Amino acid sequence: MKIIIIGGVAGGMSAATRLRRLIEDAEIIVFDKGPYVSFANCGLPFHVSGEIAEREALLVQTPERLKARFNLDVRPNSEVLAINPEEKTVTVSHEGKNYTENYDKLILSPGAKPFIPPIVGLEDAKNVYSLRNIPDLDQILAHISGQNLGKATVIGAGFIGLEMAESLAQKGYQVTIVEMAPQILPPLDQEMARFVENELLAKGITVITGRSAQAFSQEGKVINLTDGRTLESDLTIMSVGVSPASDIAKKAGVALGLKGGILVDDHYQTNLPDVYAVGDAIVVKQEITGKDALISLANPANRQGRQVADVIAGIERPNKGSIGTAIVRVFGLAAASTGLSERVARQEFDDVEVLHISGKDHASYFPGATDINLKLVFGKNSGRIYGAQAVGKKGVDKRIDILATAIKGDLTVFDLPELEFTYAPPFGSAKDPVNMAGYAAINLMEGTSRSIQHYQLEEALTAGKILLDVRTESEFSRGHFGNAINIPLDDLRSRIGELDAAKEFIVSCQSGLRSYIAERILKQNGFNVENLDGAYALYSTVYPERIEK
Amino acid sequence: MKIIIIGGVAGGMSAATRLRRLIEDAEIIVFDKGPYVSFANCGLPFHVSGEIAEREALLVQTPERLKARFNLDVRPNSEVLAINPEEKTVTVSHEGKNYTENYDKLILSPGAKPFIPPIVGLEDAKNVYSLRNIPDLDQILAHISGQNLGKATVIGAGFIGLEMAESLAQKGYQVTIVEMAPQILPPLDQEMARFVENELLAKGITVITGRSAQAFSQEGKVINLTDGRTLESDLTIMSVGVSPASDIAKKAGVALGLKGGILVDDHYQTNLPDVYAVGDAIVVKQEITGKDALISLANPANRQGRQVADVIAGIERPNKGSIGTAIVRVFGLAAASTGLSERVARQEFDDVEVLHISGKDHASYFPGATDINLKLVFGKNSGRIYGAQAVGKKGVDKRIDILATAIKGDLTVFDLPELEFTYAPPFGSAKDPVNMAGYAAINLMEGTSRSIQHYQLEEALTAGKILLDVRTESEFSRGHFGNAINIPLDDLRSRIGELDAAKEFIVSCQSGLRSYIAERILKQNGFNVENLDGAYALYSTVYPERIEK
Repeated sequence: MKIIIIGGVAGGMSAATRLRRLIEDAEIIVFDKGPYVSFANCGLPFHVSGEIAEREALLVQTPERLKARFNLDVRPNSEVLAINPEEKTVTVSHEGKNYTENYDKLILSPGAKPFIPPIVGLEDAKNVYSLRNIPDLDQILAHISGQNLGKATVIGAGFIGLEMAESLAQKGYQVTIVEMAPQILPPLDQEMARFVENELLAKGITVITGRSAQAFSQEGKVINLTDGRTLESDLTIMSVGVSPASDIAKKAGVALGLKGGILVDDHYQTNLPDVYAVGDAIVVKQEITGKDALISLANPANRQGRQVADVIAGIERPNKGSIGTAIVRVFGLAAASTGLSERVARQEFDDVEVLHISGKDHASYFPGATDINLKLVFGKNSGRIYGAQAVGKKGVDKRIDILATAIKGDLTVFDLPELEFTYAPPFGSAKDPVNMAGYAAINLMEGTSRSIQHYQLEEALTAGKILLDVRTESEFSRGHFGNAINIPLDDLRSRIGELDAAKEFIVSCQSGLRSYIAERILKQNGFNVENLDGAYALYSTVYPERIEK
Repeated sequence: MKIIIIGGVAGGMSAATRLRRLIEDAEIIVFDKGPYVSFANCGLPFHVSGEIAEREALLVQTPERLKARFNLDVRPNSEVLAINPEEKTVTVSHEGKNYTENYDKLILSPGAKPFIPPIVGLEDAKNVYSLRNIPDLDQILAHISGQNLGKATVIGAGFIGLEMAESLAQKGYQVTIVEMAPQILPPLDQEMARFVENELLAKGITVITGRSAQAFSQEGKVINLTDGRTLESDLTIMSVGVSPASDIAKKAGVALGLKGGILVDDHYQTNLPDVYAVGDAIVVKQEITGKDALISLANPANRQGRQVADVIAGIERPNKGSIGTAIVRVFGLAAASTGLSERVARQEFDDVEVLHISGKDHASYFPGATDINLKLVFGKNSGRIYGAQAVGKKGVDKRIDILATAIKGDLTVFDLPELEFTYAPPFGSAKDPVNMAGYAAINLMEGTSRSIQHYQLEEALTAGKILLDVRTESEFSRGHFGNAINIPLDDLRSRIGELDAAKEFIVSCQSGLRSYIAERILKQNGFNVENLDGAYALYSTVYPERIEK
């Protein structure tokens, strides 16, 4: 059997090596239009800062080593110009010469390409780069080494944009991030992204949201924003997203779907006989919604590559879809998400409920414990987990990985308290934040607690509800909501007579734990009361301008 | 309603605080025979070394604070001498005086007590302590401060024993661990425990396994072991396990089960009306086997306390059982397990298969990546996950927590590759060790690979099988199995003619990855071949004496 694979990174190379292990006598040719295959694309931003010191570290494999170990015929600098499905051949361009190669099976793993918005003056800009591969990286490094460091602009505040912003700041640039959406990190909800934005601001990075670049001038040295502002920029990184690199497939008659993604069945087969596709270029099923999605992440791409090899070797292996799990480190913080954000979940489901809790990465009495802000998005009727997000210095990856596993296992919020985690003081807590999120969700579902979200507070207060802050007097004096009244939790039972039971109350504290206790006391004393989810810690992060001191 | 709770730590205090939130007007009395309630018992060993610097940090709550916040009547130094189920009263001793208190509902959360083996001379020993509570801790600290540091002995190499061994070594003692079992850390399998034992040895701790203390003499200064050896000991910690503190319950007619554990139904009800029990003292269902078990861990105890409160408040909340997840830090290593060990699983199931893989805690090309040795115990027919163990410097807690979640979600090994984890180079890999363990398990189940365990190797070689080591020549020369032949993997295809296809082969490399590739090459060339699971890294850890250089 002769198998041709287009694309030698992630999905393509996983397919090639698995195929070799399954079919020792197959002829396997891997074409990649770039000079390198199997490189660590997720590591690229970290070499800009020098955190990954050696460029060689990014080159995970070479054609020579892949030949020796896997007997693969890996051909870099070989661009497939055309797929000829009738003849079962591909037309390849290498060093200016074209040739054809026939196949029995063809696997497309072309990946995604950076989306470059049509901005006036972009073609004349000499300092605008995107970052998807080693040549991109080399260009950026050459640019940096060739000039004095100055101002850098990152357009697009997704994962790669933020990693590049940090790397360029570490390098010594004065960095500005421009994001068209009203928030950075669009996979997260706005209030969770604010924790990250604050970290960027604290590290001296300028963040401009709700604006985009409208025009470049002076060979890219000046950027005009949509609000009329101009930015000077010595180096600009364009990271506004990616789109499937499906042009060649389309020309060959491969059926495309959502946003130009390649359509495959659940065994990675395209509409063309013996032509398969995997990786960032394909449309997948979002497992939680059951709908089509584009999910450009390394983990699914690698899995798909391996699975298509199994399919070609005759092993039954369906593509079950993806839920989408991702993380980014932004200076001292990590921000991660799995499944659906609240924003997306509300578009898809009618019973969306959310909660925010704050917990420690390990036992609070053991040195070095840090906060994790965890958000759970779930179905209020079913208890189904739609998604989760977390931000914190440590332990964020663990909690989101656990919740990603819970989603894959169809666990509901009722199962979260049942999860038994490793606990010793350096590693966790007897009641992990994931357990606590489950308890809090169950309280909401069973009516033991009723919550109100940060974005609903102003309207509720305008409508006459009373905000009761149960933190201590000294916490209150350091900053509080306008118009809140303060009765510390431990005094609430004795001072409950001060409250007018005819009014409706919203209780808050620092993180939401004490206010929940207050909610229970008040409710059982006949009060109409709601708990401000996320409490002061969340509210003051999202609306610092509304805080009084 | 008047509720009495016996035991003010973990389960008892979780029950008390949840009950207050659910039933504001209940009278809730908590008796504890010790001077402190709600202390951080898992933190005790870390205060011996000073890593938790302040004793106060261990005292999570005080009766005064619990009164103010939860309106609880917490009575320390109050030993319940008798339960009188007919009268629905308890008899309490406090400062030498006895009194009775009646109840509507009674919750027993007495915990477990250190098991003290009947050793000759123990009653005259003046330097032997166990560590379960603050007074124990205070005694040990007083002993340490009153004398010159010298030799310390820890009898029993479970989690607390190892934590104490480290703490005493950090403090300056010359520490010897004595464990009756053939290995340290009995919840782990022997080969996994060896990684931890090597860490202890590297830190200068003496480890004696397969021996126990037979007699103390000279007021405990001399310990006679069962093999005739004697140890000098200035301070001895007894940590050979715990047993349910169920004496009072038994006297009152509460039915006991396994090893004296309190029997409860799945709503924590004992055989006596209105008497409930939770925590380390109760018999629980091991969820994986469905059998009775004693699981003394903080996470289930806290959950049970909360759940019994729900039950008493009329909320349906069954106890689903526990799987048992635990971790211990031993100097620079973490060792963790969830579910069943191979040893236990083989007693319970017929189709037990195991595998060992070695992976990195995060992307190998990102600085600071360290090894994780992961063992998976699963059903070869069903793919059911029976248990997992891991040892490594970082990321061990995360992987075991993920696998614990997978077990709770009834995921099989077929689901492990599907799990989508947070991946950025500082946090993980595109193919996480948990994904890889799933791939390896599936290969075994589908016959793509066939493995042999480390303990089967000698017999197989004696029977005439050939051991082929596919590491490089330089790796081979640094240490190898006796009688192994060496053909580096990348030369295998060209040198396959050197191998006698009439023989049966076992392949090995460093971690098992290259040998699996070799296995596939050989198998597809008609050879009869097995892969040595865990390969040289595992084998040389368990049998260093069999390695040639």
